[in-house]
Amino acid sequence: MAEASPDAAARSVVVGVDLGGTKIAAATVAADGTLGPVRAVPTPAAAGPDAVLDAVAGLVREVVAALPGGARLRGLGVGTAGVVDVGRGVIVSATDTLPGWPGTDVAGGLRRRLADLASDGPSGDAPAVPVFVENDVDAHAAGEVWLGAAAGARSALLVAVGTGVGAAVVLDGRPLRGAHHVAGELGHMPVPGAELLRCPCGRTGHLEAIGAGPAIHRRYLALGGDAASPDTRDVVARAGAGDELAATVVRDAAQAVGRAVAGVVTVLDPEVVVVGGGLAGAGDLWWSALEGALRAEVVDVLADLPLRRAALGNEAAIVGAARGAWSLVGPSGDQPGTRPGGLGEETHRERTTT
Amino acid sequence: MAEASPDAAARSVVVGVDLGGTKIAAATVAADGTLGPVRAVPTPAAAGPDAVLDAVAGLVREVVAALPGGARLRGLGVGTAGVVDVGRGVIVSATDTLPGWPGTDVAGGLRRRLADLASDGPSGDAPAVPVFVENDVDAHAAGEVWLGAAAGARSALLVAVGTGVGAAVVLDGRPLRGAHHVAGELGHMPVPGAELLRCPCGRTGHLEAIGAGPAIHRRYLALGGDAASPDTRDVVARAGAGDELAATVVRDAAQAVGRAVAGVVTVLDPEVVVVGGGLAGAGDLWWSALEGALRAEVVDVLADLPLRRAALGNEAAIVGAARGAWSLVGPSGDQPGTRPGGLGEETHRERTTT
Repeated sequence: MAEASPDAAARSVVVGVDLGGTKIAAATVAADGTLGPVRAVPTPAAAGPDAVLDAVAGLVREVVAALPGGARLRGLGVGTAGVVDVGRGVIVSATDTLPGWPGTDVAGGLRRRLADLASDGPSGDAPAVPVFVENDVDAHAAGEVWLGAAAGARSALLVAVGTGVGAAVVLDGRPLRGAHHVAGELGHMPVPGAELLRCPCGRTGHLEAIGAGPAIHRRYLALGGDAASPDTRDVVARAGAGDELAATVVRDAAQAVGRAVAGVVTVLDPEVVVVGGGLAGAGDLWWSALEGALRAEVVDVLADLPLRRAALGNEAAIVGAARGAWSLVGPSGDQPGTRPGGLGEETHRERTTT
Repeated sequence: MAEASPDAAARSVVVGVDLGGTKIAAATVAADGTLGPVRAVPTPAAAGPDAVLDAVAGLVREVVAALPGGARLRGLGVGTAGVVDVGRGVIVSATDTLPGWPGTDVAGGLRRRLADLASDGPSGDAPAVPVFVENDVDAHAAGEVWLGAAAGARSALLVAVGTGVGAAVVLDGRPLRGAHHVAGELGHMPVPGAELLRCPCGRTGHLEAIGAGPAIHRRYLALGGDAASPDTRDVVARAGAGDELAATVVRDAAQAVGRAVAGVVTVLDPEVVVVGGGLAGAGDLWWSALEGALRAEVVDVLADLPLRRAALGNEAAIVGAARGAWSLVGPSGDQPGTRPGGLGEETHRERTTT
């Protein structure tokens, strides 16, 4: 088989995918992080894992087909809902958002579906697309560390506060996975202020029971707030408009996040903290309460720890997942990326020492 | 200069040092972890850093002199009180236990004092003893991860509960240092149950305010316990003998530690948790309260997380510090360890990728 020409390598792209419970979004991401046009389709979650993988593969084909003629798929990165075994590219566990998702071999399923798009392999190996799969919060974090609010940091805590509360811990430039693939479950930290409040996990006193978006709405109603308030966004708006109870509930939620973050940074001592998710747009009341609680708790040496708002928005997970794929295939055009066996633990370790 | 003979290499030893505010202890530690006889001297803390370094160097000389004739010092590992910049072997900050300790170049000071004991360097380089310096809690952790309760684990949380509450986070087999060298400050995590209790750091609500040894005694007295109780050991003994108030105070302290550990493992997802320090010997009431709180808080996937008592005792820091020195000089006898410039960041990075 002929060596790939520089020209062919230039038409060999990496695609990043953000795979959520309601929407799949994808785009090309260049080695320098430049994002192509984002295409999206609804997630056929109810139709099961095979349908979801079909939809991902179809979307990736669309993205590649939209490029100048003859482009090949050099690597694919996927950030997905659920707990991921990154070394194997397999889903360990997931919520009901994606029925049947646990156990799904995302990497293998997409490699099979997209083999015809693969760049040529060296010396007669069957072509295969290197596929990198990680949890979507980790993908978000990887994006922010690569090109966003934590760009250049070797270590960071990235927190997402929205429907739930999640986090990613980046050390030596890569998201910490954990012994059970669940590192970063910030939402289930015990936190002062959440005592007796019920967490979605069934226990009491965890951060998510007071700090997540739905908790704000629920608590506002439970404390006697206006029963006509439809959702968290409304409670946040009322807080901004001077509703004392709404303000208290929003402030309590933000302070709980701040205290939890304080606990984590006290033990991890990262370079920077980045906060994103729906509530990161909740305004100054929420931010100042979070930051106030954080700074009040930490020891002196951490007093100036940078606290930043996530910068990349919805594209962060696409970019971050693509970064994982780039780390598999390498930035140069010399080796257009066939790796027999795909994402073994060894591949993962190689990645970690670069 | 002649190559070191295998015989000379065999007489070239690594010494580990545990440097505390009251005592300095040292022993040889073989490449397989075998510990030689431990020698100790009081720490001349009040006499200042130079006197302390003189005492360490003198003790190391004693340890080497006690070996069969002509032994050389191949490497030295020091676990010391205080916050350490491990890359440079310099003290960043420390409490008043060691007056003047901040800023002390422990690695450089010991290299100078012990140059005449160095193994021969290759090709005419001036002999120098490679010196590895880290915080004593991190050294303890490194010992437990090498040969103790966490042996074989790639990741671990090691907690020490005594006069204070400290921790070390081991990831990829090595203690996490942190961006400001203070990773592991578990004692200053906000923890449910400690609200309104004053922490030695001056804030309120931190783990150390309820979970450390002195907090147990202080709280027992504050809640109306027998004013004749002289210390924490006595409160623990009373708790074991059926004193309800003492039992409550001990249980509250242990539960706070358990909740803080739950928070950390929820975010880090380590393979194992190891608990040591003076209170680890406080008996079943303390342990069962700690373990009960931990297991009640963590999400299902962490339900079986191993919780173990530290296994190495007082020698852990000697062994762990020596392990750091071994990582600098390598296990073989081929390169008896001259490294011009000593412990640069580069050296440290080499260590992290092995």
